[in-house]
Amino acid sequence: MKLGQWFIAGLVVLGGGAALGQSAGDAADGVRAADAAWLKVYSAKDLEKSVAFCDEQGSMMAPNAPIATGKAAIKKLISSDFASGDLVWHADKAGVAQSGDLGYTSGTYKFSFKDPSGRPAVDNGKYLTVWKKQADGSWKVLFDMFNTDQPPF
Amino acid sequence: MKLGQWFIAGLVVLGGGAALGQSAGDAADGVRAADAAWLKVYSAKDLEKSVAFCDEQGSMMAPNAPIATGKAAIKKLISSDFASGDLVWHADKAGVAQSGDLGYTSGTYKFSFKDPSGRPAVDNGKYLTVWKKQADGSWKVLFDMFNTDQPPF
Repeated sequence: MKLGQWFIAGLVVLGGGAALGQSAGDAADGVRAADAAWLKVYSAKDLEKSVAFCDEQGSMMAPNAPIATGKAAIKKLISSDFASGDLVWHADKAGVAQSGDLGYTSGTYKFSFKDPSGRPAVDNGKYLTVWKKQADGSWKVLFDMFNTDQPPF
Repeated sequence: MKLGQWFIAGLVVLGGGAALGQSAGDAADGVRAADAAWLKVYSAKDLEKSVAFCDEQGSMMAPNAPIATGKAAIKKLISSDFASGDLVWHADKAGVAQSGDLGYTSGTYKFSFKDPSGRPAVDNGKYLTVWKKQADGSWKVLFDMFNTDQPPF
């Protein structure tokens, strides 16, 4: 075997590795896309579509409130959130189980609101979302939790 | 068919349902056990063992602090937590992916501490932990997040 053949064999192995990496990336892309699609309807303050992203047994775990489980409780919480300011977020990490039925996204958020005196204020924090694949293949929110990075008052 | 036969058939169906429930329970028992084992060393304030429950790339997402990723950052955060009070928690929900490599536990916590004036105080809240199965079969913390149920000051 000539050196040239070893080189080609090496490329094939590297190519296989890249394909595996690509495949793992694609798996997490499903929850990344769900996260981005949720952000789109959430930042547009579309209440019905935002609630529709949650699993029937989904829980939203907001600071300063008990766990809200189920669509009615989540709807109330999101509605209150919409009224109090503007939320955007960015997913820094995403992953899914090998079986493709459970995944997560996590990153940071920025919440712009008006303080009690009416002046513009910003809260920066982080979030963690656990996604569950539904029977129809879509990803829905099983848990969503967030908290602030700001020091206590 | 007599009524007695219907009754027995009904019992068999119910039995089948219970078996499925049991099977799902067994899968989640792995993360429930990891959650309970973590609680044990955490409430004993064993810093090394508490940090050892975290994945090398694990993140702890505590309120009023940026995301702490990696064992050094997590150790600092847990150490500060140990110094400020006594934490206990209870897992109400647990689940794992069908592939058994990713799971979650979630529930409530109680943090007992002394307020700035030295009087005993309690903070009640909730938590969400994402667990990743390691190469050795153990479950480690990939994300751990919590926040308070108490209204803002």
